[in-house]
Amino acid sequence: MTSWIEIPAASPFPANNLPYGIVSKDGGRRHVAVAIGDQVLSLAATANTGLLDDALRDEFGVVDRAIFDAPSLNPFLVKGFDVWHAVRVRLLELVADGSYEPALRSALVARSDVTVHLPVEVADYVDFYSFEEHAGNVGRLFRPNQPPLLPNWHRLPVGYHGRAGTIVVSGTDIVRPSGQRLVDGEPEYGPSLRLDIEAEVGFVVGTPSPQGSSVSTVDFERTVFGAVLVNDWSARDIQAFEYVPLGPFLGKSFATSISPWVVPLEALAAARVPAPAQDPVPADYLLPAGNAYDLSLAVDWNGSTVSRPPFAGMYWTAAQQLAHLTVNGASVRTGDLYASGTVSGPRPGGSGCFLELTWGGAEPVTLDDGSERVFLADGDTITITGTAPGADGTTIGFGEVTGTILPARG
Amino acid sequence: MTSWIEIPAASPFPANNLPYGIVSKDGGRRHVAVAIGDQVLSLAATANTGLLDDALRDEFGVVDRAIFDAPSLNPFLVKGFDVWHAVRVRLLELVADGSYEPALRSALVARSDVTVHLPVEVADYVDFYSFEEHAGNVGRLFRPNQPPLLPNWHRLPVGYHGRAGTIVVSGTDIVRPSGQRLVDGEPEYGPSLRLDIEAEVGFVVGTPSPQGSSVSTVDFERTVFGAVLVNDWSARDIQAFEYVPLGPFLGKSFATSISPWVVPLEALAAARVPAPAQDPVPADYLLPAGNAYDLSLAVDWNGSTVSRPPFAGMYWTAAQQLAHLTVNGASVRTGDLYASGTVSGPRPGGSGCFLELTWGGAEPVTLDDGSERVFLADGDTITITGTAPGADGTTIGFGEVTGTILPARG
Repeated sequence: MTSWIEIPAASPFPANNLPYGIVSKDGGRRHVAVAIGDQVLSLAATANTGLLDDALRDEFGVVDRAIFDAPSLNPFLVKGFDVWHAVRVRLLELVADGSYEPALRSALVARSDVTVHLPVEVADYVDFYSFEEHAGNVGRLFRPNQPPLLPNWHRLPVGYHGRAGTIVVSGTDIVRPSGQRLVDGEPEYGPSLRLDIEAEVGFVVGTPSPQGSSVSTVDFERTVFGAVLVNDWSARDIQAFEYVPLGPFLGKSFATSISPWVVPLEALAAARVPAPAQDPVPADYLLPAGNAYDLSLAVDWNGSTVSRPPFAGMYWTAAQQLAHLTVNGASVRTGDLYASGTVSGPRPGGSGCFLELTWGGAEPVTLDDGSERVFLADGDTITITGTAPGADGTTIGFGEVTGTILPARG
Repeated sequence: MTSWIEIPAASPFPANNLPYGIVSKDGGRRHVAVAIGDQVLSLAATANTGLLDDALRDEFGVVDRAIFDAPSLNPFLVKGFDVWHAVRVRLLELVADGSYEPALRSALVARSDVTVHLPVEVADYVDFYSFEEHAGNVGRLFRPNQPPLLPNWHRLPVGYHGRAGTIVVSGTDIVRPSGQRLVDGEPEYGPSLRLDIEAEVGFVVGTPSPQGSSVSTVDFERTVFGAVLVNDWSARDIQAFEYVPLGPFLGKSFATSISPWVVPLEALAAARVPAPAQDPVPADYLLPAGNAYDLSLAVDWNGSTVSRPPFAGMYWTAAQQLAHLTVNGASVRTGDLYASGTVSGPRPGGSGCFLELTWGGAEPVTLDDGSERVFLADGDTITITGTAPGADGTTIGFGEVTGTILPARG
């Protein structure tokens, strides 16, 4: 589609993407914007023109323009699918039709002139483990004398709760964590020596569900608003010592980075592909499975692309993850984030973490500057990008999730 | 201490307890109150009299009375230790000195006339596993062919993240969860057949800490505001099938109940006792260990007291749990809740869960009505109470955490 807004050809943000984020300018108030080309369109300013009133009008005729004049997307997300859809349809009109340019020109700001913030006030954070290649590889590395996949893995989407309070927006520096890890077989306190990444895709819940009921797979698109890229930083040595029997804790909880732009599921409609076959047939509550998404990720280590994890092969769909998460009656809340698990295909080119890429540190990778790495060094920068096919041959970009490692503190 | 407010001799809420909660009356606005005897003293109303102004005045001379006219304790908790202390000192004066009765009489309401609500907007929820008896018993039952305690257990307080969004206040009914569990060795979906409790003590964080730094054990009392009783409902069959390798998930996430009254740590000063000896000596970041608390818990099953779990024997102190939680640079936020882990002593009389009490279901307990139980039946009510020694021979009560099991939903 065309737009009166100039959009560079290779932009991750064509006019049919319109991902949502939180921006501020010159230290001013945080508010909602969508990214388009090299600019952002302030939705706080757009709403003030009245041009979104029809999309925002509720069943009592009340228009709440203030939902975009907010420091997180949550007030918009809680409105539910019908409002998400109406606002998106209206925004697609507004950026396509040049007659709106006079009213909206001042609502546009260069993306380089704004600061992006954490887009969502995260309620609960769940991390799944739904890539067979990753789960198998981690099993082989962490539990070498046992079958790599446990009996539950093909029966349900294994997952666990992470720390919501340490989710940070792309660009935030990551302090190397310290903790207890085995050195020559003895636990010793110190900075992590095996600091890793996990390239994932995260799903942001908009519509809450009541406690004591569950969300069906078919309600996925009415419940989940959109998707972000996730880097679930992982200290493998701390994790290895602590994780039996209650799962990962300090090895993960120091920081999780997400991309600043939440891509609406509606912008990913053209990326829907059939989900992989599942054997055995899943329990009824996990059916219908829903679709996979054909996203392509790339992991850059100090500028060298070291892997391209393929997302479409995820064994359990995002709809199944949501249904599983709630089948016991657990509620979801607006702002819940659940992540796919490390996106991995055949190694090394498809590995979404360095544990797999370097086979537990045994096979170093060489970066473009000739230096070798097994895990992250202080000063290293990791940038994960992602794209999906959009309508009419366009490419929907996620924006990047990037972070640089700072030395451990005292 | 004496008070102009009438306090029954056996009340869990003597005049030196003053635990904080959120109440409403006749469907009105939720606000902060303290429990005293059979009544509650509205702090929203007390603040309106001006009698708390000196305690609330900040370094700029500003008095924010509105922190008590709020639907959670969070606005008060975020003010930090100096304000908690000043308000407590002032409240102790106000309830002791009869000259304040005319001003405050109308701020008192019978406890039976108010509804209690979730006292805290819970940020992140962490559940520890710090009772040696419990961890050993669970190990013996879940992993019969391995050493019951893993090498990490005496080195660090093992814990994991739970679901903050399904924490509910005492009195909330609990719908029996469904999920996949093994039946004759095969996974099958259905209502949990081994629904259990976990009697715990939870610590509520008031003062936030920045990401990338850690909280020392000596800062425990400036960081943690107070304590509640916790019932971490657990579906043992769902948990057993799902929990390897990432830990408990759906077996726990359907509901966690907490008592409505947050007892300030300052009210527990007389309950401080030396922490148990720790061997091996913990890592430096876990020292000094801080103190244990001599709390006594009782678990009632349909009115029959089935166990009295002793809290003072907790291997890792609450201060050590906090230090561990943050040693990797994870921040804490106002409203974070971390729980002790199942409080257990020698079985059966000291068991804080039915898995231990009935030895995995092998040894039924007989209730006072002659009926037998191994796990929870629909309609069963569990009530956990707790007390601690207070100053001058008084007894500090926690109020109860109670819940009734409803049948699984279709």
